[in-house]
Amino acid sequence: MECIFCRIVAGEIPADVVYQDKELLAFRDSHPQAPTHILIIPKSHIASVTDLTGNHQALMGRLMLLARELAQKEGISASGYRLSVSTGTDGGQLVPHIHFHLLGGRKLDDMLG
Amino acid sequence: MECIFCRIVAGEIPADVVYQDKELLAFRDSHPQAPTHILIIPKSHIASVTDLTGNHQALMGRLMLLARELAQKEGISASGYRLSVSTGTDGGQLVPHIHFHLLGGRKLDDMLG
Repeated sequence: MECIFCRIVAGEIPADVVYQDKELLAFRDSHPQAPTHILIIPKSHIASVTDLTGNHQALMGRLMLLARELAQKEGISASGYRLSVSTGTDGGQLVPHIHFHLLGGRKLDDMLG
Repeated sequence: MECIFCRIVAGEIPADVVYQDKELLAFRDSHPQAPTHILIIPKSHIASVTDLTGNHQALMGRLMLLARELAQKEGISASGYRLSVSTGTDGGQLVPHIHFHLLGGRKLDDMLG
């Protein structure tokens, strides 16, 4: 198993996990860009947004709702936050396992990248 | 109707629409941050990620899949792209109608905001 996020899912690499269920895992980014910087991933290996199929519709919807919940738990619902997913080279995706960044706890820049 | 995006949905304000169906609308951002900068919104008024409920799960999943499709149509699937949704003041959300930014066509900055 080469994928670093699959290894985190399997418990082979430690991570600061903030949430998990059968399908989804959320853990703090080891190089945070903001006071709250959580990565939310499906436990199953999906390389990127480009690799999504119709079968992933419900899973992606659940992931969005989880982001909302985690923002509440982090106490950043009122102040605001950003959810961002990068794909490929231009997107700056570093790990080829789809991951959503939840960022908050400071005023984020208006430039999205 | 005060919401500018609801007015775009209603056809009261012109926009460079690239896709629409019964539930979703996509149009080019009038102040693009990248060669491709498309906003994807639900036609029904949802203020922000914080206002999502379980009833929106399927809709949010569909929106994710539409982002993937639009990236393909724009020819940025191979080069890469970013999908980003901002909430509230810290997130820099300017229009209180949930909207996802699809950005690509250049190397995006690693800083997400």
